[in-house]
Amino acid sequence: MTLRIAILGAGPSGLAQLRAFEAARRDGADIPEIVCYEKQSDWGGLWNYTWRTGLDAYGEPVHGSMYRYLWSNGPKECLEFADYSFEEHFGRPIPSYPPRAVLRDYIMGRVAKSNVRQYIRFNTAVHWVDQDQATGKFAVTVRDLKQDELSTEEFDHVIVATGHFSTPNAPYFEGLEQFPGRVLHAHDFRDAVEFEGKDLLLIGSSYSAEDIGTQCHKYGAKSVTFSYRSQPMGFDWPESFAEVPLLTEVIGKTAHFKDGTSKEVDAIILCTGYQHHFPFLPNELTLTTHNRLYPEGLYKGIVSLASPQLMFLGMQDQYYTFNMFDAQAWYARDLILDRIKLPAAAAMEADCNEWVSREEQVANPFEAIDFQAAYILDLLEPTDYPAFDVTGVAEIFKEWEHHKEADILGYRNKSYRSTLTGTLAPVHHTRWMDAMDDSLEAFLAEEQAQPAKESA
Amino acid sequence: MTLRIAILGAGPSGLAQLRAFEAARRDGADIPEIVCYEKQSDWGGLWNYTWRTGLDAYGEPVHGSMYRYLWSNGPKECLEFADYSFEEHFGRPIPSYPPRAVLRDYIMGRVAKSNVRQYIRFNTAVHWVDQDQATGKFAVTVRDLKQDELSTEEFDHVIVATGHFSTPNAPYFEGLEQFPGRVLHAHDFRDAVEFEGKDLLLIGSSYSAEDIGTQCHKYGAKSVTFSYRSQPMGFDWPESFAEVPLLTEVIGKTAHFKDGTSKEVDAIILCTGYQHHFPFLPNELTLTTHNRLYPEGLYKGIVSLASPQLMFLGMQDQYYTFNMFDAQAWYARDLILDRIKLPAAAAMEADCNEWVSREEQVANPFEAIDFQAAYILDLLEPTDYPAFDVTGVAEIFKEWEHHKEADILGYRNKSYRSTLTGTLAPVHHTRWMDAMDDSLEAFLAEEQAQPAKESA
Repeated sequence: MTLRIAILGAGPSGLAQLRAFEAARRDGADIPEIVCYEKQSDWGGLWNYTWRTGLDAYGEPVHGSMYRYLWSNGPKECLEFADYSFEEHFGRPIPSYPPRAVLRDYIMGRVAKSNVRQYIRFNTAVHWVDQDQATGKFAVTVRDLKQDELSTEEFDHVIVATGHFSTPNAPYFEGLEQFPGRVLHAHDFRDAVEFEGKDLLLIGSSYSAEDIGTQCHKYGAKSVTFSYRSQPMGFDWPESFAEVPLLTEVIGKTAHFKDGTSKEVDAIILCTGYQHHFPFLPNELTLTTHNRLYPEGLYKGIVSLASPQLMFLGMQDQYYTFNMFDAQAWYARDLILDRIKLPAAAAMEADCNEWVSREEQVANPFEAIDFQAAYILDLLEPTDYPAFDVTGVAEIFKEWEHHKEADILGYRNKSYRSTLTGTLAPVHHTRWMDAMDDSLEAFLAEEQAQPAKESA
Repeated sequence: MTLRIAILGAGPSGLAQLRAFEAARRDGADIPEIVCYEKQSDWGGLWNYTWRTGLDAYGEPVHGSMYRYLWSNGPKECLEFADYSFEEHFGRPIPSYPPRAVLRDYIMGRVAKSNVRQYIRFNTAVHWVDQDQATGKFAVTVRDLKQDELSTEEFDHVIVATGHFSTPNAPYFEGLEQFPGRVLHAHDFRDAVEFEGKDLLLIGSSYSAEDIGTQCHKYGAKSVTFSYRSQPMGFDWPESFAEVPLLTEVIGKTAHFKDGTSKEVDAIILCTGYQHHFPFLPNELTLTTHNRLYPEGLYKGIVSLASPQLMFLGMQDQYYTFNMFDAQAWYARDLILDRIKLPAAAAMEADCNEWVSREEQVANPFEAIDFQAAYILDLLEPTDYPAFDVTGVAEIFKEWEHHKEADILGYRNKSYRSTLTGTLAPVHHTRWMDAMDDSLEAFLAEEQAQPAKESA
């Protein structure tokens, strides 16, 4: 009997999994019967933009944390698929930091050329996954959102590809319930224009804070104050930015900080990260982890130690993204196709523990990049995923870190060389701070799409 | 063996159910074993205010649609519990339109005097309800949110008291995804101060639109435009208000309407209602209805025709609220205590159909009030819930409708006579338009809490 595989989610990692099976099928392999469940009405995961916040049209939590005017915050050369270059997709070299629409077009461009869309059941949310102890089979119960009807199907393997940037981690601070203005988590941030002329307080010191803060500055916020728990980002911020210690209390419009300073603000954005959240998994199958490079409980960062027929993609903290998801998807596929054999439970646990303790030695971002490179190389070794220069990509990540340090508002004007094609990316026609139009058309226009701003 | 009852939700209707059993217990009755599951950390349902929007601290949808500065939009004399007057609670007569904190204090005051809090498991969300076809027993699976752990218990009856003002109904309008400003559903509205000086567009013509619009005006919005689908509210609005036909499209900041007019706006609030949403009920047990006075499929507006051991409270469109929930809770209790017998299935269905077709004859709000009064009288007849002047309350509702029509920004300055105590409510120390402080302390202060505004 043919194996049946459920893939939960049709975002970058779920699509990588579909693409992995498709590659095997094209090479003549017998592939399992695949059903991919997707809550949204289209593929793309968090690369889809929605104006909705909170709950969607069917009362399900909105998946995406995507906002308007988002540009890649890392060089595209670091996230290139090994089997599909940006140059192949766009027919010519493009600059290194594309806006959302361009990245989405690239990710979807690869899968659109395959026939995998047929496997996806859109507008279908996963409600519950249960494993029969006797047979090992999974019963996956889903809700057809349009019909508001539940149904259950049986599978041999379940691959969780639901992401971990959807469920906000939103701590309480004293006085928030009395603050006269908007309080939101980064998950609900949609349009910087709303904050034009405002004094903003952003809690957090990671990517969300950095990117939402700089974007609000770009679109006219009066000031941006970052409040950090452990340490400031430390970039060389322009005058209207400030970094202060953690918020202790809000009284009226005045935010008070741990160092005794205060600031009157108009809105508060919690850039306090996300939770790994699997409301559809029973206690014994769920994954409990914070955002780290090597989550505990997953062999090769993929296979559930609790139940090896259950796998997870993309649950890591990420430098590498699309190509790491590919490496995981090819590995997961080869496990299912029996091309790779799982070792005994004790060996899997030992291997996992070794990686986890290795991660615990990681002392800085540069070592973190090398750690993730080593992880990917380990995954690639037994599969036929096209070889790519993982270490070369790590070097680009390090260069990127230096560029950010040198110029947090200007690093997106830099260019890098593709490890696949060897081409150095052209310089974009408009500096990022002046590029207000983030459409694919404006980005790809040969001519300068808009006059540069006089200032900045 | 003692019956086991699950009550889902500890808001006004769930608390009414707890109070109903408590009243029987005090009168010497043997009452069943009761477990009340509540997602929030405190009782009060939507009368709790939270600064959170979208998802709560545990990734569950935020229950409440409550916003700051909300005042009752109906006379308190219409929602008085028959067994606990406002005068008894506050020790003296108070004005007819109290702010949220005062109403919450009253509702909680009654239950705080009982010992029902012990039955409630807080921070516990209902995940799934299943009924065994053979035994008729329910398996209720809940998530302990703090522990992130699921567990299941068995019950003889399940009473769904989860409300129907939590899951937004949010239709799409062309161009929303490009609108440069905030777009939100009324469910996520929290603080009018955010919209000071703004031109607002509110889609909808029911209570949410009316109340959020007038409140934003009170707190300094520049203009309020209501866009209606079928007909305008038709109140005598001040100059900065407008009512226009349905939104057809948004282009940039410009909203275009069906009559060809347009308006530049800064924010859009969808006051487009809520969905009855029961993600924890299987297909065969769920209730499918829109917001109406007599939902189909519920005998006496309470008992599921699909499975009579399953009951629903407060699922009606509501004029009457707290006292109607009481009437339902006493009726549901007496069914469970076997003091009232259910007729055969066919008779229940016929009775239900009769009420449904009677509702379909209702031609205007005045007839709707009379219809709901008749429904409550029908419920009260076989129970020992203290008699109250249901028809007298209906007359107050009608007076209220006239007062709103005469002065939409001033009707909250009116006073009504309690049908329980016979006392005419005192006039509040401050006119509603000038009462910016909505705290319980300011409302109950004998002296005028703040100077009246010079204008208005």
